[in-house]
Amino acid sequence: MVASAILPDLATQVLVPAAAVVGIAFAVVQWVLVSKVKLTTEERRGEGSSAAGKNGGVSEYLIEEEEGLNEHNVVAKCSDIQSAISEGATSFLFTEYKYVGLFMGIFAILIFLFLGSVEGFSTKSQPCHYSKGRMCKPALANAIFSTVAFGLGAVTSLVSGFLGMKIATYANARTTLEARKGVGKAFITAFRSGAVMGFLLAASGLVVLYIAINLFGIYYGDDWEGLFEAITGYGLGGSSMALFGRVGGGIYTKAADVGADLVGKVERNIPEDDPRNPAVIADNVGDNVGDIAGMGSDLFGSYAESSCAALVVASISSFGINHEFTPMLYPLLISSVGIIACLITTLFATDFFEIKAVDEIEPALKKQLIISTAVMTVGIALVSWLGLPYSFTIFNFGAQKTVYNWQLFLCVAVGLWAGLIIGFVTEYYTSNAYSPVQDVADSCRTGAATNVIFGLALGYKSVIIPIFAIAFSIFLSFSLAAMYGVAVAALGMLSTIATGLAIDAYGPISDNAGGIAEMAGMSHRIRERTDALDAAGNTTAAIGKGFAIGSAALVSLALFGAFVSRAAISTVDVLTPKVFIGLIVGAMLPYWFSAMTMKSVGSAALKMVEEVRRQFNTIPGLMEGTTKPDYATCVKISTDASIKEMIPPGALVMLTPLIVGIFFGVETLSGLLAGALVSGVQIAISASNTGGAWDNAKKYIEAGASEHARTLGPKGSDCHKAAVIGDTIGDPLKDTSGPSLNILIKLMAVESLVFAPFFATHGGILFKWL
Amino acid sequence: MVASAILPDLATQVLVPAAAVVGIAFAVVQWVLVSKVKLTTEERRGEGSSAAGKNGGVSEYLIEEEEGLNEHNVVAKCSDIQSAISEGATSFLFTEYKYVGLFMGIFAILIFLFLGSVEGFSTKSQPCHYSKGRMCKPALANAIFSTVAFGLGAVTSLVSGFLGMKIATYANARTTLEARKGVGKAFITAFRSGAVMGFLLAASGLVVLYIAINLFGIYYGDDWEGLFEAITGYGLGGSSMALFGRVGGGIYTKAADVGADLVGKVERNIPEDDPRNPAVIADNVGDNVGDIAGMGSDLFGSYAESSCAALVVASISSFGINHEFTPMLYPLLISSVGIIACLITTLFATDFFEIKAVDEIEPALKKQLIISTAVMTVGIALVSWLGLPYSFTIFNFGAQKTVYNWQLFLCVAVGLWAGLIIGFVTEYYTSNAYSPVQDVADSCRTGAATNVIFGLALGYKSVIIPIFAIAFSIFLSFSLAAMYGVAVAALGMLSTIATGLAIDAYGPISDNAGGIAEMAGMSHRIRERTDALDAAGNTTAAIGKGFAIGSAALVSLALFGAFVSRAAISTVDVLTPKVFIGLIVGAMLPYWFSAMTMKSVGSAALKMVEEVRRQFNTIPGLMEGTTKPDYATCVKISTDASIKEMIPPGALVMLTPLIVGIFFGVETLSGLLAGALVSGVQIAISASNTGGAWDNAKKYIEAGASEHARTLGPKGSDCHKAAVIGDTIGDPLKDTSGPSLNILIKLMAVESLVFAPFFATHGGILFKWL
Repeated sequence: MVASAILPDLATQVLVPAAAVVGIAFAVVQWVLVSKVKLTTEERRGEGSSAAGKNGGVSEYLIEEEEGLNEHNVVAKCSDIQSAISEGATSFLFTEYKYVGLFMGIFAILIFLFLGSVEGFSTKSQPCHYSKGRMCKPALANAIFSTVAFGLGAVTSLVSGFLGMKIATYANARTTLEARKGVGKAFITAFRSGAVMGFLLAASGLVVLYIAINLFGIYYGDDWEGLFEAITGYGLGGSSMALFGRVGGGIYTKAADVGADLVGKVERNIPEDDPRNPAVIADNVGDNVGDIAGMGSDLFGSYAESSCAALVVASISSFGINHEFTPMLYPLLISSVGIIACLITTLFATDFFEIKAVDEIEPALKKQLIISTAVMTVGIALVSWLGLPYSFTIFNFGAQKTVYNWQLFLCVAVGLWAGLIIGFVTEYYTSNAYSPVQDVADSCRTGAATNVIFGLALGYKSVIIPIFAIAFSIFLSFSLAAMYGVAVAALGMLSTIATGLAIDAYGPISDNAGGIAEMAGMSHRIRERTDALDAAGNTTAAIGKGFAIGSAALVSLALFGAFVSRAAISTVDVLTPKVFIGLIVGAMLPYWFSAMTMKSVGSAALKMVEEVRRQFNTIPGLMEGTTKPDYATCVKISTDASIKEMIPPGALVMLTPLIVGIFFGVETLSGLLAGALVSGVQIAISASNTGGAWDNAKKYIEAGASEHARTLGPKGSDCHKAAVIGDTIGDPLKDTSGPSLNILIKLMAVESLVFAPFFATHGGILFKWL
Repeated sequence: MVASAILPDLATQVLVPAAAVVGIAFAVVQWVLVSKVKLTTEERRGEGSSAAGKNGGVSEYLIEEEEGLNEHNVVAKCSDIQSAISEGATSFLFTEYKYVGLFMGIFAILIFLFLGSVEGFSTKSQPCHYSKGRMCKPALANAIFSTVAFGLGAVTSLVSGFLGMKIATYANARTTLEARKGVGKAFITAFRSGAVMGFLLAASGLVVLYIAINLFGIYYGDDWEGLFEAITGYGLGGSSMALFGRVGGGIYTKAADVGADLVGKVERNIPEDDPRNPAVIADNVGDNVGDIAGMGSDLFGSYAESSCAALVVASISSFGINHEFTPMLYPLLISSVGIIACLITTLFATDFFEIKAVDEIEPALKKQLIISTAVMTVGIALVSWLGLPYSFTIFNFGAQKTVYNWQLFLCVAVGLWAGLIIGFVTEYYTSNAYSPVQDVADSCRTGAATNVIFGLALGYKSVIIPIFAIAFSIFLSFSLAAMYGVAVAALGMLSTIATGLAIDAYGPISDNAGGIAEMAGMSHRIRERTDALDAAGNTTAAIGKGFAIGSAALVSLALFGAFVSRAAISTVDVLTPKVFIGLIVGAMLPYWFSAMTMKSVGSAALKMVEEVRRQFNTIPGLMEGTTKPDYATCVKISTDASIKEMIPPGALVMLTPLIVGIFFGVETLSGLLAGALVSGVQIAISASNTGGAWDNAKKYIEAGASEHARTLGPKGSDCHKAAVIGDTIGDPLKDTSGPSLNILIKLMAVESLVFAPFFATHGGILFKWL
């Protein structure tokens, strides 16, 4: 007799949506606070004077007042620029969604056809796979519900990305305006906006999944096996959307960024984000569609997939067989508590402490990581104690394995803490406060070549500890609770997703804020402040990418395990030719994929360069600032290039599992997934850290904050030029090819999982012929 | 009843050493021909005039005579420079061997202790592992003979590398002098010298192995299991030596090259190899110790290891159990026929055809690949027909598998042809005759950053087809004849090693020849000719690296299979935590290793830059060419740096299998080997192709041979400067970190194989404690 969880089912039914509602409410509050920074000058003026006597809160307008605070012109300019960026981003996302929508429609039909054909579109109930002797719902129902779940996942992902972008473009100009009042104000505005995105995304991911389970449950009744199989479509939908978001957005942003830098900074010697640069709007739009919308979709995808992986394994474990609702929803309970833990953490940044100086930014962000991890550890302990029976059995490749609730606590906790370690290591290798980035900056003395050599070496080296951390989490969680353990370890790492996204989104918002300050012609001091915010943002962006790839590794393994279970394979033996060729080809796929995305950025950047050069050469008065450049053409080049160039890498990722599964069968596909996972995670980590380090090495030289940094600078020195080259090379590595690899490994795994029944029944036709 | 091979044992006993002797004789003949180019002016003059009337052969001195042919001064200068290079290389290698010798001594003791302790240094005969019911030699004997074999392998590898270096330094100035008479003459001299090295190495590797088997056999008698286990020490010795040769030599050569280029070409705007550059001798020494001695040791290691892997599997298959001498020595027969096939092939380059123009060089070298492959295919068919019984059984992870001789023919042939495909693909991606390199050159228009982005993308892309070729060979050979099939596929790829090494060694010889021409102040036209030879050499070097890595992948897998058999593991299941953590950590090792080697090159290059700058700044008259620079200090910097810096990566590779085997056991070690293999092969291929492409993109711009190339040039243009940066970044990628990775994956596998009995008995203590 298995004991029950302490928490009654009804409480679970209330707690999960309640946490989601709290998360959304908190996001709304943060949004209201951000919106108090007005972009219309009349109101600003009034507020500014009336708030003079107040104490505390956001209205201490005069404390650090600066030149141009109430200047009508500047505010109007900021507002204009913000509108241009927002419009560009919206129009790109709509174009992207149009093409991707078509693709997703076709893919949805494929899912229906493939899954339906497993049992010949049968409408008859069939014996369950795992719960022997019981009857489960017909294959046709599974096909339909999987397809619907796929759509739901895609739409949620799309909405997450879109909302994130809207919030970020809403916040960027406001951050710029606040920067006039000091670093602290600007930081709070950028960080609050990041939090809006983080909480909205975490909460909506949770609530949609919760509703889907309950709605699907009405049809499925006691067939939990079928129910949670169908739910995996949610993960596939989320991740497919994320693929295009990351790749398309990544190409967009870096084509614009590289193109703008190559002509502006290198050839024309004008500052970054100078309004005379025709590609400047495209560049700022790119930050929002790539780093914000793409990142949001990506992390949402990871979150959806790890939940799905855990749920599908749980459904065939004792929870699922005994229909214990509370332990079954343990993954969702973890996420619910995560929202509350992050909420507490956020208050530390926004209300309990105040940032006053530039060098307090990075520690403040680091504190966020530590606090959220500490609070969440308590939360996990609570959930594991209340939400799980003392002991239960977990499906382990054909057998059932007994697990205790404290063991599952360890699985989630090890994931969570591995995330923190990855975050710290990433910070160490990408922040210009430590020696690795300073060494890279120092190597610019001898030119761009040594800068690149040192930067590549740094990226390679930065892989070591994260991999050990991931390996340790996998070993512990795998040993304690098989694939369920790995899935919840991934959820543990993602449980603080709201905080993670907040500090991650903070980066591009600050970057944009700096751009707007430059374009609006604000003073040098304000630009310095936004640059400081942005330098911290590069580090947090790298940390966010570290989390994304770390969790992607765990998620993929969990999905891989679930796939193997569903495809009824009992071992994946490297010492069989079918598996080994999968392994080596799988390890090659990240290279193929990176070759495509890097080349795409390169080619699109070349086109951008030609256009920017053309405008400088043919538009009279452009260099002098008397004529406006043609921003729209540059936006169009980025848009067209990214839409066109995202198809081949997207197809590579989406079609490979289908082709391998159909022609080579599930063994080769297993090898392929394992190979892509272990190889992809390395390239992804090294690419994003190399890029982050180069960017901050450049910023280190520009800021000239230390004796050493001043010997390398100033802007325009040979060292600085070498650093700019490194930075430009790093752009596609850290924002296009690197982070897209997360999705490659996750998506191939979740796709294999969804199609597993088809491959197991009809796959491997090449070997069947031979 | 199993049928016997057609070839009698006595014939095998004669044929193998005979082929080796023929190979050595051929090498001597080629050497004599090269030595006809005299470096003392008196003789030259005499010969020059006396040979005027002769027809054909190497003495047509006057046919393409040119300015400076008989100039006393030039010849004396060449001779001096050559002596300086040769002395530098010899002194470095002696220093290197001193340190490595110490290390190897310690390692030899470790081997003895570990293997001896398996059965407590027992001197009693023990029951055989695989031949049930028979008695085998005591563990102590195995420990002693393994240690002796290890020493033999190390010494052979050392001698191979050293001889190669001697030949290359003997040939470089002679190539320069011949370049005065035309491209064809210079090509023949460089190519013949490469052939001397190729044939000496292939033949000595074969003959030492043959003698060791026969000598060890006197003691071992009918215990073939023990005999061939002991012989695997030969592979380990060869590869350990190669590791230090590759890493130490690689750091040496690139520290000097990068350092020389950064100050000379970039800052001082003087040509490559200008005698005023203090690092120029170190640079030329580096080509010989890195690209020649290192490469020679590496390929010798591959060859020794694949033979050992095949032999150890064969010894526990029906050949070994039935004591059939001829089929047992099938791997050596393949290599013997390979020497003959390559001999025929070489005649096509040196005697049957003549190179008259620059654009005939690359096709001539390509023809070498095609001819050797075609001839060897016939050779393999012959050996498989004569040297093997019609059917036999092969050990396949615990079972015996029946194989036919034509199936084994297919295994060897697929390896051979996969090598050709890898060669062609490498040529396509690294030769400036095709669009990939031209695109990279074109991307220099927008600066160094796009050059690097395009180059990295090219390298990633160039991995695709080689991996498919390797995967296909593995699938076929693995399916047909299990690990024996994979081992002979590797041997197939390496069977044309003499030709491979000849065309590979040709590269650095030409590079040196160009350097000597520049330093001796010879005319621009001569430098153009050596540049053309060198551009082809970059491509052939990349092809050589392609072969090295392709064969390393096959060899490692075969060794891995042999390890698994000896460690008595029946499956390597990715879906167990122990194996999976091995897999992901293994996939990380190549990054860790590359980080170390790249950083080493970077740091050493920085030191070199400082020294070169110091000399330019403090030695009066250096820039004007009136004072000689202090070459010796630069040589010392390279030497010290490489000796010091080769220790950490060397230790990483040598210690990892020991630590993992002892603490985590054979399952984790299996995962580690598989992970390192599938990840390392990708980085190695992409690194060497990226580097080759950058080098040739630069040469493409410099040569200005096409309309397109001329729009990018000339030397010193912005495009060219961007190309030089790419070239410099590529140096450590293609000559240090990339090629060293072959050794990482091979060495860890062969080391695991040698220590397998110890790990299986005493390993995994961490898990035993838990």
